[in-house]
Amino acid sequence: MERPLFIPLILGTARQGRQSENVARFVFEQTQKRADVETEVIDVRELPMKLDDAGEQMKDPKFAAAIERCDGLIIVAPEYNHGYPGLLKHALDMNLKEYIHKAVGICGVSAGPFGGARVIEGLLPVMRELGLVTIFEDVNFGKVGTLFDERGRLLDQSYVRRVDKFLNELIWMARVLRHGRENIASA
Amino acid sequence: MERPLFIPLILGTARQGRQSENVARFVFEQTQKRADVETEVIDVRELPMKLDDAGEQMKDPKFAAAIERCDGLIIVAPEYNHGYPGLLKHALDMNLKEYIHKAVGICGVSAGPFGGARVIEGLLPVMRELGLVTIFEDVNFGKVGTLFDERGRLLDQSYVRRVDKFLNELIWMARVLRHGRENIASA
Amino acid sequence: MERPLFIPLILGTARQGRQSENVARFVFEQTQKRADVETEVIDVRELPMKLDDAGEQMKDPKFAAAIERCDGLIIVAPEYNHGYPGLLKHALDMNLKEYIHKAVGICGVSAGPFGGARVIEGLLPVMRELGLVTIFEDVNFGKVGTLFDERGRLLDQSYVRRVDKFLNELIWMARVLRHGRENIASA
Amino acid sequence: MERPLFIPLILGTARQGRQSENVARFVFEQTQKRADVETEVIDVRELPMKLDDAGEQMKDPKFAAAIERCDGLIIVAPEYNHGYPGLLKHALDMNLKEYIHKAVGICGVSAGPFGGARVIEGLLPVMRELGLVTIFEDVNFGKVGTLFDERGRLLDQSYVRRVDKFLNELIWMARVLRHGRENIASA
Repeated sequence: MERPLFIPLILGTARQGRQSENVARFVFEQTQKRADVETEVIDVRELPMKLDDAGEQMKDPKFAAAIERCDGLIIVAPEYNHGYPGLLKHALDMNLKEYIHKAVGICGVSAGPFGGARVIEGLLPVMRELGLVTIFEDVNFGKVGTLFDERGRLLDQSYVRRVDKFLNELIWMARVLRHGRENIASA
Repeated sequence: MERPLFIPLILGTARQGRQSENVARFVFEQTQKRADVETEVIDVRELPMKLDDAGEQMKDPKFAAAIERCDGLIIVAPEYNHGYPGLLKHALDMNLKEYIHKAVGICGVSAGPFGGARVIEGLLPVMRELGLVTIFEDVNFGKVGTLFDERGRLLDQSYVRRVDKFLNELIWMARVLRHGRENIASA
Repeated sequence: MERPLFIPLILGTARQGRQSENVARFVFEQTQKRADVETEVIDVRELPMKLDDAGEQMKDPKFAAAIERCDGLIIVAPEYNHGYPGLLKHALDMNLKEYIHKAVGICGVSAGPFGGARVIEGLLPVMRELGLVTIFEDVNFGKVGTLFDERGRLLDQSYVRRVDKFLNELIWMARVLRHGRENIASA
Repeated sequence: MERPLFIPLILGTARQGRQSENVARFVFEQTQKRADVETEVIDVRELPMKLDDAGEQMKDPKFAAAIERCDGLIIVAPEYNHGYPGLLKHALDMNLKEYIHKAVGICGVSAGPFGGARVIEGLLPVMRELGLVTIFEDVNFGKVGTLFDERGRLLDQSYVRRVDKFLNELIWMARVLRHGRENIASA
C-alpha cells in the first residue's frame, strides 16, 4: 500500500482580522478527510521571517523540511490590491529547490465577488519559477465576509463540492508528480 | 520498449517575414534528434481558421487529432506588443479537452534582448486554463534578427545547450504526465 | 466651448453567436448619451485583416485614422480560455503610434460569474506597451448568457450605474491626457 | 513659475547585500539633477511594518504623507522568483487613496540579463488597482552584479541615457496628471 501524500496548506496572510482563516480551516478539514493524504497548516504569521532581509537567507529548517517532504501544496491567498499578500511572497521566497516538481492548488479569497481570481493569475509566474505545477482547478471564495457565520462555520454548502473537485485534481497531480520524481529518470 | 513521445511544435505566427521560422526550424531539428520523440511542425499560417468566427467552432480534424495524440507541445511564440500573437491564440482556442494533462514548453522570440520573456508570462494563464502544464524551462531567443545568417543558420551555438536543457525537462514532464494519464486513477 | 472627446468602442470578438454584441450595444448607447463625447463602434469582424500576416503591415487607413483621432477607447473583451480573443489582439497590433497617450477602459465579458476579470489582467501589459493608459475602473459583465433577454435588452439595471462610473473615469482621463498631448511639452 | 514636481523613489527590497541599492542611488542622483523635480528615497527596510499584520492598518504618517504629496513615483524593484519582493508589496499596501491619479515608473533589477522584465509585468495589475498610471518606459537593470564597481559606481554609461528617457516620460505624465487633478473636474 502506498504511503500517504503529504499536502500542507499555507495560510497566506498575517492580516489582523483575516477572513482567510475561516477558508483555511474549512479547506484543511476537507483535506484531512482524505484517507490517503496527510496535511498540516503553515501559517505565514507563525514563520520566523524578518523585515530587514529576504529570500533563502531567512530559511527556516522546519518550513524548509515541510516543503522538501511535501508532494503538493494548498495556498490560501487573499487578494490585496489585485496582487498577492506581501508576506505570502516573503514566505514563499524562503525556500527554493524544495518546491521542484510538486503540485500546487490555489484557493483565492476576496471581499468582492470574484474570489481572488486576480491573485491567482498573479501567482502563476511565481509558482512556475519555483518549479511548482499549478493545477487548473481553483476554488474562489468570494464575498468572504458573509460566507461564514460568526463562529466560522461555512454558510454555502456548494463549497464542499467545489473543494472536493479541487482536491481530486490536486491529489491526482501530486501522485503523478511523485511517481515521476521517484521513478522516471531525467531525459 | 516504450512507444515514442509525440511532441509537435507550433509555429505561433503568420507574419510575413517572420524570424520565428528560423527559431522553429532549429528547435524542430533538435527535437528530431531525440531518439524517443516523434515531432512535426504545426504552422498557424497553414491552419484552416476564419476571420469571422473563433473557438471550437473552427475545430480542424487534423489539428485536433495532433493535439489529442500529443504528449507534449513546443510553442514558438514571438512577442508582439508585450503579448502573444493574435493568430496563435486564435489557433489555440480551436481545441479544448485535447490539451488536458499534457506538457508544454515555450520558446519566446523577440527583436529585442529579452527573448520574449513577457509573451511567456502572458501565455501562462492561457496554458493553465487549457489544462496544459507549462514547464519551468524556457528558451529565450533574443535579438532574433541577428541570431541567424541569411540562410537561416544559427550563429550562437550556446542555444544548442539551452534547447537541450529545455527538451530534457519537457520530455521528462511529458513522460510523467503520460504515465499519469494512462496509469493513475482520478482521485 | 471644448470640442467633444472622440471615444470609439472596439467590439473585440468575431465569434459567431457572440454575446458581447449585446454588451457592446448597451455600452455604446450609454456612451452616446454623453453630451461631450462622440463615439462609434469598431467591430473586429469588419476589419480588413488577414490570416497570413500580422502587425502594422495590415494597417487599415480607416481604422488607423480612428485611433489616431481618438482621445480614448472602450474595449469590449470576452474572456476566452483566461486570455484575450486572438482576433482582438490581431486587430490591436495593426496600429502602433496612434495609441500613444490615449485613455482606455475595458469591459470584460464572460459566461461565468467573474465578468472577464482575467482577460482584463491579461490585456494590461499590451495596453501599456501600446502607450495606452488603462483606467482603474472596469465593468465586468458576468453570466452574460442570462444578462440580456432574447431581444438583447439588459435585464440587470445595476449596470447603468456601473457603466456610468466607468465612463466618468474614462472621460476624465481622456480629457486629462488630451490636455497633456496638446499643451504640455515633453520633459 | 510652477512649483516642482515631487517624485520620491521607493527602494523595493530589504534583502541583505541588495544590489538594488546601487541602482536606487544612481536613479536617485539622476532624478535630483532635474531642476523641476524634488525627490527623496523611501527605503522599505526603514518603514515601520509588522510581520503580524498587513494593509492600511500599518499606515505610517510619514510614508502616507509622502505618497499623498507626490506627483509621481519611481519604484526600484528587483525580481525574486519572477515576482515582486514581498516587502515591497507589504509596503505598497500600507496606503490606498494616496496613490490615485499619480504617475509611476518602474526600474526592474535582476541578476540575469532581462533586467526585471517579469517583475514589471507582475506589478502592472497592482499599480493599476492602486490608481497609479504606469508609464510605458521602463529601465531594465540586468546582470546587476557586474553593472557597478565595488564602490557602487555605474560601469555602463548607456544607462544615463536610458534613465533620462524614462525620467522624461515620467515627468511628463506626472505633470499631466497633476494638471488633471487640480484643474479638470470629474466627468
